[in-house]
Amino acid sequence: MNDFVYDIPTKVFFGRDQLEKLGPLLRSYGTKVLFVTGKGSIRRMGLYDAIVNEMEKNGLTWYELTGINPNPDVVFVREGAKICRENGVDIILAAGGGSVMDTGKWIAAAAKADHDAWDFFSEKKAPVLDALPVVTIPTAAATGSEMDCDGVISNAETKDKVSRADQKLYPVAAFENPEWTSTCSAFQTAAGSADILSHIMEVYFNINEDLEMLDSFMEGMMRNVIKYAPIALAEPGNYKARAELLYTSSWAINGSINGGKNQRWTCHSIEHQLSAYYDITHGLGLAIITPHWMRYCLNEERLPKYVQFAKNVFGIEGDDDMDIANKGIAATEEFFFETLGLDRTLSALGIGTEHFEEMAVKAVGPTGVLSGFRPLTPQDVVKLYEMSL
Amino acid sequence: MNDFVYDIPTKVFFGRDQLEKLGPLLRSYGTKVLFVTGKGSIRRMGLYDAIVNEMEKNGLTWYELTGINPNPDVVFVREGAKICRENGVDIILAAGGGSVMDTGKWIAAAAKADHDAWDFFSEKKAPVLDALPVVTIPTAAATGSEMDCDGVISNAETKDKVSRADQKLYPVAAFENPEWTSTCSAFQTAAGSADILSHIMEVYFNINEDLEMLDSFMEGMMRNVIKYAPIALAEPGNYKARAELLYTSSWAINGSINGGKNQRWTCHSIEHQLSAYYDITHGLGLAIITPHWMRYCLNEERLPKYVQFAKNVFGIEGDDDMDIANKGIAATEEFFFETLGLDRTLSALGIGTEHFEEMAVKAVGPTGVLSGFRPLTPQDVVKLYEMSL
Repeated sequence: MNDFVYDIPTKVFFGRDQLEKLGPLLRSYGTKVLFVTGKGSIRRMGLYDAIVNEMEKNGLTWYELTGINPNPDVVFVREGAKICRENGVDIILAAGGGSVMDTGKWIAAAAKADHDAWDFFSEKKAPVLDALPVVTIPTAAATGSEMDCDGVISNAETKDKVSRADQKLYPVAAFENPEWTSTCSAFQTAAGSADILSHIMEVYFNINEDLEMLDSFMEGMMRNVIKYAPIALAEPGNYKARAELLYTSSWAINGSINGGKNQRWTCHSIEHQLSAYYDITHGLGLAIITPHWMRYCLNEERLPKYVQFAKNVFGIEGDDDMDIANKGIAATEEFFFETLGLDRTLSALGIGTEHFEEMAVKAVGPTGVLSGFRPLTPQDVVKLYEMSL
Repeated sequence: MNDFVYDIPTKVFFGRDQLEKLGPLLRSYGTKVLFVTGKGSIRRMGLYDAIVNEMEKNGLTWYELTGINPNPDVVFVREGAKICRENGVDIILAAGGGSVMDTGKWIAAAAKADHDAWDFFSEKKAPVLDALPVVTIPTAAATGSEMDCDGVISNAETKDKVSRADQKLYPVAAFENPEWTSTCSAFQTAAGSADILSHIMEVYFNINEDLEMLDSFMEGMMRNVIKYAPIALAEPGNYKARAELLYTSSWAINGSINGGKNQRWTCHSIEHQLSAYYDITHGLGLAIITPHWMRYCLNEERLPKYVQFAKNVFGIEGDDDMDIANKGIAATEEFFFETLGLDRTLSALGIGTEHFEEMAVKAVGPTGVLSGFRPLTPQDVVKLYEMSL
């Protein structure tokens, strides 16, 4: 069991009637806000006006950066950082999906840096020396960006999509109202649920032994997604279901379940190339890749974790461990493709083999091996892409 | 489902080799430390010298307040606060069991107050306007004081024992090394485990419906205590068992599982009178009271939670819900009194009926009703004391 440090500073205001605390909280950090938003859904649901009202009521000056795309490009980070520097912005408020919040976090770092924003993600790996405070307001239960210190930024020029975390990027606060996630489409709800499940599985399936207490947290969260995602799909306005998914999304990735496990996030590395090359929805890509990855990593040595997963998450019983493990994988597939109704192949998304070789090299990275639950070479990753066709 | 705010600022350094981070961390808050300790166990295990070495290596000046008792008296708080004020102490380091850490927290508040320390606990309920930072080093898996914002202080003069929490009293950091809990006696380990279980049950058995995700966390933690306490009893030096119990003790009471539930902590209120009047070990008192309280609160309306508990914590199955519920209570008793080997009656501790009436009035408090899972009057509490004889 490895030593670890637990350090999550984010405050969460959870529930229906918390927004009146937003203005005073922002105000406690200064008077100038950069308000980062996406493509209009927060306007349609009235959240935009409610936030603006809160800022005006509290005498805040605000600048807006809007139109952030899914798989957000570094150009938004550059633009946001420029606004912050030119106007002496004190705090960033990012309201929207994962791309909006990820962009907000990296603007916070870029605003305090004297180099180009892409230097954080290129081979230079510029250190994060300082960052503006960030407040998040999620409108989907998915990426968990509202309570983690990670952000995924793309670069259309270089066809790169890079995830990077830094302790300084934990939001100071997240305002989580399940009602704001109720307008998510069935597809967004399904892809978001797959994303949450994947975040947990990336930590759960690990060669490091760690605290069983944390395994029980992970299993509880996985059962929760499996139980409440179908309810949210059937009844989009079901507050209880939206609340369970939203809070689970935050805790799936805020760092609390990591303990001392070495993290490699294999499926995410493999999927990021798919959404970088084809701009597909991250959670959908994860759903397609994950079951193949589970089958590919299964061997006698790794078997006990699969059995634990199948039993404690899906309640599968039996006499033969390998059979139980395979049933656990089949149940995962059934959840992704039958219950959530997600596409199960890359072909269905119009993706062919043409970039698999270079995508695999990028997924594996400079060491030449993705050293996760089972070490994967670029050849292994190509096979996984092919199995997913 | 009620709204809630999640806000736990405590950083945890968990594992065997974290102590070298203590000095620099203390140093980041100033140069003068009040070092609060108990009755010598930290000297015997070498922790005292290791801490002193860390402070000296980092050029810190330290003052010592030692000899803190179980059920710590307010006189220690007064004395510690005086040392802080007279010497301009910057930070408090409390290393020991729950009483040492609780004392440290309230010294932190009292050092910044211009009134007597008992005013925080008497009917005056003086507000905590400010507090020194506190660092905790637990030597037992029990109270969870290392990561919560509560402290229980007694007053021998008035025979009062009062628990009070304040957000400002969350420790800034906790150094948790499971090895430092390995020298706990079998009795301390057993009573500590009962304490952890009770902390979770006080939140779990609640009339407010809340996030199922948090229920699954609680059930996982309860199963963890039930699994690992016997291992720690059988093999006191088992690192894995000590680690599971220690981290579970922190998370059982740090506030993460509360969600929006209204908290009343019935068994704690009832038990605090026992340890105030008879100076018994808190966890032992809780073990004796809890099963009686469970039986006393069981009715048709509360039945579903008992069934959920019995099934998800003890794996009890069956056709009749009332039967399942009763088996869950019986399993709890078996755990406390057979597995942990704790005394099951107040008589065994030499406690008689003589103070039950006044203890019950104090347990219930000024409103006249303990409004927990089932509302209890002083008469109900007297009955519970009598059932426990």
